[in-house]
Amino acid sequence: MNKIENISLGTITSPKGFQAGAVFAAIKGVKSEKPDLAVLYSEVPAAVAGVFTRNRVKAAPVVLCQQRVKSGKASAIVVNSGCANACNGDDGMTDAVMMAELAAKKAGVPATEVLVASTGVIGKRLPMEKIRDGIGKISLARNKGHDFARAIMTTDTVHKEIAVKVGGYTIAGCAKGSGMIHPDMATLLGFITTDAAIDLKVLQKALHQAVDVSFNMISVDTDTSTNDTVLLLANGQAGNPRIKDCTPEAADFQEALDLVCVTLAKMIARDGEGATRLIEVNVTGANSVTDARTVARTIVSSPLVKSAVHGCDPNWGRVAAAAGRSGVAIEETKLAIAIGGIPLLKAGRPLPSDAKKVSEALGRNEVKIDVNLNLGIEVATAWGCDLSEEYVKINSEYMT
Amino acid sequence: MNKIENISLGTITSPKGFQAGAVFAAIKGVKSEKPDLAVLYSEVPAAVAGVFTRNRVKAAPVVLCQQRVKSGKASAIVVNSGCANACNGDDGMTDAVMMAELAAKKAGVPATEVLVASTGVIGKRLPMEKIRDGIGKISLARNKGHDFARAIMTTDTVHKEIAVKVGGYTIAGCAKGSGMIHPDMATLLGFITTDAAIDLKVLQKALHQAVDVSFNMISVDTDTSTNDTVLLLANGQAGNPRIKDCTPEAADFQEALDLVCVTLAKMIARDGEGATRLIEVNVTGANSVTDARTVARTIVSSPLVKSAVHGCDPNWGRVAAAAGRSGVAIEETKLAIAIGGIPLLKAGRPLPSDAKKVSEALGRNEVKIDVNLNLGIEVATAWGCDLSEEYVKINSEYMT
Repeated sequence: MNKIENISLGTITSPKGFQAGAVFAAIKGVKSEKPDLAVLYSEVPAAVAGVFTRNRVKAAPVVLCQQRVKSGKASAIVVNSGCANACNGDDGMTDAVMMAELAAKKAGVPATEVLVASTGVIGKRLPMEKIRDGIGKISLARNKGHDFARAIMTTDTVHKEIAVKVGGYTIAGCAKGSGMIHPDMATLLGFITTDAAIDLKVLQKALHQAVDVSFNMISVDTDTSTNDTVLLLANGQAGNPRIKDCTPEAADFQEALDLVCVTLAKMIARDGEGATRLIEVNVTGANSVTDARTVARTIVSSPLVKSAVHGCDPNWGRVAAAAGRSGVAIEETKLAIAIGGIPLLKAGRPLPSDAKKVSEALGRNEVKIDVNLNLGIEVATAWGCDLSEEYVKINSEYMT
Repeated sequence: MNKIENISLGTITSPKGFQAGAVFAAIKGVKSEKPDLAVLYSEVPAAVAGVFTRNRVKAAPVVLCQQRVKSGKASAIVVNSGCANACNGDDGMTDAVMMAELAAKKAGVPATEVLVASTGVIGKRLPMEKIRDGIGKISLARNKGHDFARAIMTTDTVHKEIAVKVGGYTIAGCAKGSGMIHPDMATLLGFITTDAAIDLKVLQKALHQAVDVSFNMISVDTDTSTNDTVLLLANGQAGNPRIKDCTPEAADFQEALDLVCVTLAKMIARDGEGATRLIEVNVTGANSVTDARTVARTIVSSPLVKSAVHGCDPNWGRVAAAAGRSGVAIEETKLAIAIGGIPLLKAGRPLPSDAKKVSEALGRNEVKIDVNLNLGIEVATAWGCDLSEEYVKINSEYMT
């Protein structure tokens, strides 16, 4: 089954019945050429699913979204960069609710059907006058999905968006990540739209599954910042027969949604702060999917592995050490490691290898690290980026 | 009770009946002005306690030590830097056993009473000819503890050693760390000697407790590299009445041992790769000691917090975010944060503060971060260092 047709220039307004708009509102108080405030609007109320940070410190917009997605229905999303609206106590929630109201007026929908997302500095109030003025200036249109994708960027160097066509409907998404090298520390925002008609239950299940193999498998990880939010709106405007649970159509939808989310996740990993290349870690032979994921994520988020890749240093021992400290009960005498297809460790013993060739493999645009635990049949893939001096530079000066 | 007298120039041969010696054996194959191979010898068999890495991938010397400390008795330790002797399969154990035998001959003790520690690159065989020649050239003496402390250094920029006198005996220690910024990724070696007469059970308990509040509380952490090893030898040569469990004397011993280990741990944290200053995180008001430790360690090892300290960026929100993602059930509405004594967050709400003063506090030689969870009465302290561009530089070029 290959029903997916990639639409290279697609945006989150590629699916029918979605509009977007964005403005520069100077939320961070500094000049910028890119917008920092945006609204997404569905012309009819959409089914909605959401996945949110598991951080105990949650930004006000996250708390608001968690309440509102319970209804299963949403008509608009308003989002800003430059201020996280986190750690602001009750004031934060007041501001988030007000932000939703302003967007609701703009879009002409009930305020309770508006979701909110913020990203930026923690512990600062939202500049509500700027938000009010900014939303007032936004003009919504069916061709402005790209503006929305740009508005959510912070230290991202490129926007991330993709749309795919499947049978009679389209799924599109945009995301921001970039922030941090470390799992459990990303501020990740993802917004996915589809004009598919689909049962709410299928939609929710599909989003969780897609996030598990994509945003949860990059070293900028989704369960951790105060603001992480992934929202999926399905407005049914494609006119396809409604997708029901446990059908071939549901499987097609899942496959396409996975593709959208994995593509966005890899874009985020490649664009990690200071990153110069993408690292892909494939773990095979695990006793469980959870084990495979844990090992893959531990390796891809290891500062030492990331530093070694950056310096093309053929120090594969750091991969073994990361696997060993992952918490998974691996067995050293079964462990196999390859970098760029070059076998380096087998049954826990080093193989003769050409350090220069390994170094070359680490210098490629996409660095592949294969780890076989030789314990079972489960597999997982994680993505990350190298760790460069530039990362430190960016994060030493973020607020000032 | 203040029975502790600091001996500023003490080394691990300050306690009676210990000898040491070190040579440069070119184990890494490059020139160096510092020794890379050393032996510690107790003139009478000593009681021994050890704490080792929890990494599933264990270096051969760690496996050997774990077997040998079970006897409770040791007479010598042989240690090398430049090669970890990890991931070498059976060959690694053969080499570790041989290294112990060579040291046993040198010291004139049974080979089974010799412990081994290695640190350096993973997946390389030990150059046994160099080890043999090197050990042959070592001359043991009562004033060479400092040479031993220098021999274990890798990317450490300073040696770490301390000795304290308590009542009638002395406790001394040396350590190496430096390697890595990340908890669960250190290669940490610690060697502690005492001439106290003490029951083996007290000794073992005391070492575990001391490691928990010291080496386990720095962001270069002990449960994680393939080679982490802390060994404590007590040879009873001070002539003190034997220290028994649950006595005031045991408490004095614990206090002094904690001081030795915490001092070494702080030295390691301050000398983290690329570090320019020490970060101390004090967590109070936790429901349990485990919770307090977890929160403190999560904050001190956060790359974002470390980057912010490096750049004197008053971005305290990163401290809140790290606390929130620690896995501990903190409550945002009770959380309080201060940096350098300046209150920044109270009951989950930001306080007005002078960003310039906070920035100044972050620029100090020792940066203090206080976090009160306001949930209980338990406390913990963790230490780490800032994250600089230099760290990345060092770790991109480690092997090459």
